[in-house]
Amino acid sequence: MQINLHQTHHTIADFSEIFSYLEQQDNDGVFSNSINLFPELFLCGYPLQDLLLTREFIVNYCDLLDKIKLWWSSKPRSNSVLLLGGLSYEIREEIPYAIQNVVYELSENENLKEIYTKCLLPSYDIFDEAKYFTPGNKAIVWKYQDLKFGILICEDMWFSPHYKIDPVKELFEVSKDQKLNGIFNFSASPFYLGKEKSRINRASQISQQFSNCPFYYVNRVGSEDEIIFDGGSFHCNHEKVLSKALSFKEDMVTCTISEAKEINGNYLEDVAAHSFETLFRTQLDYTLEPPQLKKLEDSDYECILHALNLSIMDYADKIGAKKFLVALSGGIDSALVLTLIKLFLRDDQEVEAVYMPSQYSKGLSYDICKELCDNLEVKLTTQSIKFLHSAIRNSFSENFVELSGLADENIQSRIRGSLIYARSNQNGSIVINTSNKSELAVGYSTLYGDSVGAISPLGDLYKSEVFELSKYINKKFENLIPQEVISRPPSAELKENQEDSQSLPAYEILDAILEGYLSYKYDAQGLIKLGFLENDVNKVLKLNNFSEYKRKQFCPIVKLKAKSFGFGRRIPITKKAPRR
Amino acid sequence: MQINLHQTHHTIADFSEIFSYLEQQDNDGVFSNSINLFPELFLCGYPLQDLLLTREFIVNYCDLLDKIKLWWSSKPRSNSVLLLGGLSYEIREEIPYAIQNVVYELSENENLKEIYTKCLLPSYDIFDEAKYFTPGNKAIVWKYQDLKFGILICEDMWFSPHYKIDPVKELFEVSKDQKLNGIFNFSASPFYLGKEKSRINRASQISQQFSNCPFYYVNRVGSEDEIIFDGGSFHCNHEKVLSKALSFKEDMVTCTISEAKEINGNYLEDVAAHSFETLFRTQLDYTLEPPQLKKLEDSDYECILHALNLSIMDYADKIGAKKFLVALSGGIDSALVLTLIKLFLRDDQEVEAVYMPSQYSKGLSYDICKELCDNLEVKLTTQSIKFLHSAIRNSFSENFVELSGLADENIQSRIRGSLIYARSNQNGSIVINTSNKSELAVGYSTLYGDSVGAISPLGDLYKSEVFELSKYINKKFENLIPQEVISRPPSAELKENQEDSQSLPAYEILDAILEGYLSYKYDAQGLIKLGFLENDVNKVLKLNNFSEYKRKQFCPIVKLKAKSFGFGRRIPITKKAPRR
Repeated sequence: MQINLHQTHHTIADFSEIFSYLEQQDNDGVFSNSINLFPELFLCGYPLQDLLLTREFIVNYCDLLDKIKLWWSSKPRSNSVLLLGGLSYEIREEIPYAIQNVVYELSENENLKEIYTKCLLPSYDIFDEAKYFTPGNKAIVWKYQDLKFGILICEDMWFSPHYKIDPVKELFEVSKDQKLNGIFNFSASPFYLGKEKSRINRASQISQQFSNCPFYYVNRVGSEDEIIFDGGSFHCNHEKVLSKALSFKEDMVTCTISEAKEINGNYLEDVAAHSFETLFRTQLDYTLEPPQLKKLEDSDYECILHALNLSIMDYADKIGAKKFLVALSGGIDSALVLTLIKLFLRDDQEVEAVYMPSQYSKGLSYDICKELCDNLEVKLTTQSIKFLHSAIRNSFSENFVELSGLADENIQSRIRGSLIYARSNQNGSIVINTSNKSELAVGYSTLYGDSVGAISPLGDLYKSEVFELSKYINKKFENLIPQEVISRPPSAELKENQEDSQSLPAYEILDAILEGYLSYKYDAQGLIKLGFLENDVNKVLKLNNFSEYKRKQFCPIVKLKAKSFGFGRRIPITKKAPRR
Repeated sequence: MQINLHQTHHTIADFSEIFSYLEQQDNDGVFSNSINLFPELFLCGYPLQDLLLTREFIVNYCDLLDKIKLWWSSKPRSNSVLLLGGLSYEIREEIPYAIQNVVYELSENENLKEIYTKCLLPSYDIFDEAKYFTPGNKAIVWKYQDLKFGILICEDMWFSPHYKIDPVKELFEVSKDQKLNGIFNFSASPFYLGKEKSRINRASQISQQFSNCPFYYVNRVGSEDEIIFDGGSFHCNHEKVLSKALSFKEDMVTCTISEAKEINGNYLEDVAAHSFETLFRTQLDYTLEPPQLKKLEDSDYECILHALNLSIMDYADKIGAKKFLVALSGGIDSALVLTLIKLFLRDDQEVEAVYMPSQYSKGLSYDICKELCDNLEVKLTTQSIKFLHSAIRNSFSENFVELSGLADENIQSRIRGSLIYARSNQNGSIVINTSNKSELAVGYSTLYGDSVGAISPLGDLYKSEVFELSKYINKKFENLIPQEVISRPPSAELKENQEDSQSLPAYEILDAILEGYLSYKYDAQGLIKLGFLENDVNKVLKLNNFSEYKRKQFCPIVKLKAKSFGFGRRIPITKKAPRR
């Protein structure tokens, strides 16, 4: 016997694709003489949100279960086990009163038997599991032939004091008089930087608590709107990782079954950082004066490239788009987005770049766009908005309104938003958004203007990280991105000689304040104590509060960090708070 | 002694406003010889979402509690009780591990003592309370002098089988050997049509179960983004409503205290429609052939007027806007929105209407806008987009792209979106969205075009209800809305002789299918069985699925129904589903 970790990549609710995968693996003999672990909610996908409550979904899901039962019973199944993450519905009079997140067993003894229910339902940040699921409350030891395994589903291994029970501790209690061959964790664990390391650390810690018992972790892969599942399934014990699946790709890992372990001694209260607590880190790692954002490493940027690749390609594939469209400005954000798309592009896909200069655009901006597109071998179209801008100004003048200030700046951005979407409509491409996290945080963008797009690859990277990622790409791919766009001062180019630094603190300051405010939950006083200028802090916090309405109408932001804008951060627009 | 129901109207997190209210009422002698009930979470507002987890909010909230304690202890407080909804934080090492939704007592005996914790945490639809709160699990009888009362917080009175305990039943158990003078319910209960009636029915039912014990219900009033709290606090027993506060307005009701009631007999399992179940109604009330949307009554439309009034005015006041801007098209939606704003307008506010005809706009459209604005005495500005539209076409032609079909239609809508926002930027007004629920459901609108706006008053009304509400207003206010706009066939006027009926089923069919699909959770097969044409059903469901990405970027929709688009309906964009 061996253990196979099936790190699968399916579209949510694509039940025929899911069934085909099982059939195919079966036909290929993969299930013979093996215990096959499939990710949390493998049978339906995750996160499903309100799809879980729609009749269409429920009917199709139940049909899948019936189909699987029939298929499984169609031939003898000795020495072949599947443990599959799925849903269990309790429906009374067509109303789903309880839904559980469970593991099903398929074996010679069982045909889709629920063997375990997830106990810890994460409901912080992007998670809403308590909204949909009814928790389990019981640890079990699963037995097959003479083998014994502990079972956990995802969050179950991340106890935090806000939960009522610790499933790892419960498992320890129920298994301490038995020899365990291993512990299984079935996951659909969203990616953010550093997450993989913390999963392996935590698994290794649990292995230690269970006398170096092997730990088998199987994770989903794929991207759903803003959430990436990075896979990276692994088999480890306390000492080392014994085998590991690819990250960000479908994969299968075959693991050996070790000798059974007697569980010794007492359960040690663990000291790990829990999943929930990462949202309330209380100590900022600001070691330089003035406080600065902690720099990411090259390995982080490499990881970000893979994450963005999976996310953007999955989004396009799942909505059925083959063409991408990027509006270049001559600035770093759009240059980086175009470069990323080009790096990710498959042979069956296309990308087009459009540069839409106004009267305020500098010659350098065009030169940058041209050089970038030459480097990338991407077609560049230039479509000036000068005439349209003056036509709109005239149209207002005729009505005795003179566009000025912000109105005159924003209209340029909105003309571009309109033009890029006209092009997208005409050629069936999807527009990739180019906003970064710093802009989003302070509302330094035009709603329906430069903030448009189907999905935002940079919305979780601060401006300073956008620069660093660009430099990393240039190191890796021989200066694809023109040096001038990295060295020139950022500007929206919506009025004469405009530079971002006229409206905002320098980005290294802005980004450090934002990280302290958003990820570390510092308030204004706390930030000022850290060494930031009171003026800067107050300005940034006011801008952040005031721009909530813009973020409400923003497209999905690819999540790369523990704390991101989007579905994982829900702040009312109408509240008492400092105003501009 | 008497009981005062304080139906308060405050901005969330406006702690100084909240404290001032208490001080003012105290100075006015309102608290003397009375028990004063304040709504659920009165001390902070609701819903707070992630504000609950920000340090700024926590610090300011705790400051308020300290300030209240000091104020309460500053003078003798005999025969004066305040029962206030608020939060109780359990914080360890600056991390909020548990937050409870509680009632505090202020009296001569107690200074902000937590006396009860909410047991049922609604987490369906717009509600996310299990995400933030730790539930209570104990019913109590609250005693003051020789008076005894049962306590419930909002959802506690709406037991449904998906909850583990029934707080009303628990209350029955703990109070059956005691004489009760009444039952208090502290609510922050969101409005939708029919909600007030169901609250009173349920309270009356509970009163019956408790031997006709008086029921005191105090509700919050005000509007937060998309959610309206309608007030309507009341005092009832099984036989009748004894007193009732205004709906949609701040108010205070003074009630008498009745003689204590001995609780008799057994608790009757109630048969009421529960709050959760309204989202899964299984029987469509389609009595006509072919199935038709159930018609709302005049009293519903009157209620909708009040609800929209509160919502739009609260939104504007809370973000500090004094000017409104509406883009008129010559169609019914925008005509109705302008009429509503004008009806709601206060003396310190202004509204402006803009008509932006294209080459496809009919003369009748202008005539309608003109007549409407004359009727309403609103300034109408006409700003043609003909020239801009052809300038954009030319700009593309120069790049060898001919705008056609959808691209050419959408660009007209986006020019209008850009122009209306330029005007809004220039004069500091907020743009009121004009989309209706039918359009939103099938994506019959242009993203960043006619879908723009700060808030959507009609996004929860089907097109047929938009017509009915317009007719109701015309009946009430002497034909404010020109008859022609009600009788002409709906058209986007984005190409020659376009009518909505060319792309969509007739609205009475479309709306009935949508209501069956969205509110009653029928799937395609179920709808076809009801009598709808298979073609219509498939088309509508495909369009609905395909347009999820548009709804994700839409502004807050004022919630008027049990099932609305927006925060209460969360469907992933990337999923397996029928595509166009």
